[in-house]
Amino acid sequence: MKINGSNYKTIWFDSKDKVVKIIDQTLLPFEFKIISLRTFDDVVRAIKTMQVRGAPLIGATAAYGMYFASLLKDDFVFLEQKANELKQARPTAVNLAWAVERILQKVKNVTNNVSEVILSECEKICLEDISMCESIGNHGLEIIKKIKEEKKLETINILTHCNAGWLATIDWGTATAPIYKAFQNNINVHVWVDETRPRNQGSSLTSYELNHEKIPNTIIADNTGGLLMQKGKVDLCIVGTDRVSANGDVANKIGTYLKALAAYDNNIPFYVALPSSTIDWQLNDGQDIPIEERSSEELNIVSGLDQNNNVQKINIYPAESKSLNLAFDITPAKYVTGFITEKGVCDANAQSLKKMFS
Amino acid sequence: MKINGSNYKTIWFDSKDKVVKIIDQTLLPFEFKIISLRTFDDVVRAIKTMQVRGAPLIGATAAYGMYFASLLKDDFVFLEQKANELKQARPTAVNLAWAVERILQKVKNVTNNVSEVILSECEKICLEDISMCESIGNHGLEIIKKIKEEKKLETINILTHCNAGWLATIDWGTATAPIYKAFQNNINVHVWVDETRPRNQGSSLTSYELNHEKIPNTIIADNTGGLLMQKGKVDLCIVGTDRVSANGDVANKIGTYLKALAAYDNNIPFYVALPSSTIDWQLNDGQDIPIEERSSEELNIVSGLDQNNNVQKINIYPAESKSLNLAFDITPAKYVTGFITEKGVCDANAQSLKKMFS
Repeated sequence: MKINGSNYKTIWFDSKDKVVKIIDQTLLPFEFKIISLRTFDDVVRAIKTMQVRGAPLIGATAAYGMYFASLLKDDFVFLEQKANELKQARPTAVNLAWAVERILQKVKNVTNNVSEVILSECEKICLEDISMCESIGNHGLEIIKKIKEEKKLETINILTHCNAGWLATIDWGTATAPIYKAFQNNINVHVWVDETRPRNQGSSLTSYELNHEKIPNTIIADNTGGLLMQKGKVDLCIVGTDRVSANGDVANKIGTYLKALAAYDNNIPFYVALPSSTIDWQLNDGQDIPIEERSSEELNIVSGLDQNNNVQKINIYPAESKSLNLAFDITPAKYVTGFITEKGVCDANAQSLKKMFS
Repeated sequence: MKINGSNYKTIWFDSKDKVVKIIDQTLLPFEFKIISLRTFDDVVRAIKTMQVRGAPLIGATAAYGMYFASLLKDDFVFLEQKANELKQARPTAVNLAWAVERILQKVKNVTNNVSEVILSECEKICLEDISMCESIGNHGLEIIKKIKEEKKLETINILTHCNAGWLATIDWGTATAPIYKAFQNNINVHVWVDETRPRNQGSSLTSYELNHEKIPNTIIADNTGGLLMQKGKVDLCIVGTDRVSANGDVANKIGTYLKALAAYDNNIPFYVALPSSTIDWQLNDGQDIPIEERSSEELNIVSGLDQNNNVQKINIYPAESKSLNLAFDITPAKYVTGFITEKGVCDANAQSLKKMFS
């Protein structure tokens, strides 16, 4: 998608310099900077510090991490060990494990040109992700069209939480893909963007990417969505996810569950958009998904522009204050209207998921 | 209650200088500053800019506004006009209208010493508020004791939203009064403090006052409460309110509704603490309560300490971002376990409310 009118992906391999290029997402929305990952450790750091984030993008980046690992030593035992290191970089998103496992499977019986084989698989993962996200967009577009027609809306108001936009994937996004497709089809869309404390991925990333695509959007405090739903100002919710258990429970950015409850209470469709790599078929209950606890500094240190338009970090809590930063919550399947996947839309339960992906 | 070990109220009349003293709550938690209100306009400004906030404190401050008005001109028509000006300072809290109406009733047939009569009524409003809040504390204490015993808890975890603490009243607070009473009764309490975006009254005021009373508390992003409830980390929710309609619907700080939904979904008691002046007997449906829309600057301009420990304001959104700042939401009565009032605890419905206050 576009930033300042030019097309970008979130990650690509620079074959001249043999480095992986990413957008440093910790600097957005105030600075757009492309940085190079040159080593395995660079990749781990980029994932841990959230220079890259979003389940599908974490997966793709981790795959490139395996490429860098193979440059150090290409024997399988070593690669397995590096895969485990990568998996521990972030615990909740299942795409990370999925991507490194895919690489391991690919090279299990390969002895020659291991690095080249991995690199080509990385490119494949990225291309497939783009294609899956575009499919999600097309399937989600049908939902948007249907609601708009049924409710005879001039503009459809869509609420989203966090950033499941193209910045969270390679391109298109998951939750945003249907929005981009609708916009390209001349449907009037307006997006309510949850700010998404503590890291403000909504106001810093989702609003940023929508602005650059010229899609009308309004940032709201995370507290606001319930009232807007009560007042009939939300026609549809679409969010992304970091992991879906086999029974259809959804791990996503902390606060998603509260919006799902409000949507349910107000009879507003609540969809979760995901590529199938986000489904954890091994896990039968969302409550077993590990919830990442991150530094409480992410709550009290806030970035923004000072009067001179310089980026400043300030501490918004008194020194004696204690805080807790849990990064994800679990939305039980019963509050999810449906999943928008690359294969189509299905209900949020074990049977429907199994049927769609068997 | 205490700040730095000394006892304070949130508002008092300085009879020597004939001024009203308040704590400028917009400067908390980084600066504790007492300021003087000397005129009617000072009072309106203090309410509008939220130097004083919280439904009961707004009411008391507005009463003092009537005192200053009477110093300008003490005829009843003029005072009625000033009362209307005050009522428009903030639309949602009903205590404001209640307090100025009470003053008007008091002086309707008074021709001599009008200002002195009003001043004495202001003092009475403050003393009554303190006494009502303490009663709320005692009634709420019984609920805390019961839950602690039934669940055999070592520590009871209470979640609150925004600041319905002593800083929102004259002393004790509404939602916090039971917590202070429990603490004084040697019950181990831990409070989950919702940050309460956009103005962060939770992290800036509630956590501040709990810290100064040495009550263990942890600030959480507004998104977090749902997960904590799912994980059994919340035993009880207590919030305040700005207006309760006769049928028991609750207007309170934006986001309250989402927490009530989560409490309901997880079978956690959700109580609303209020003095009876917060009940709007004229209104039969909470959805008719006017919702204040405040400046979107409250969302994007954030205050905190920079590296040199100076208070700085930064802009956390890019210039092109649009945002919306709605200050309250409505929690339907069906999600409220009960009301903790100065007269006792009652169910959240028209009959119970009527019975308690008839």
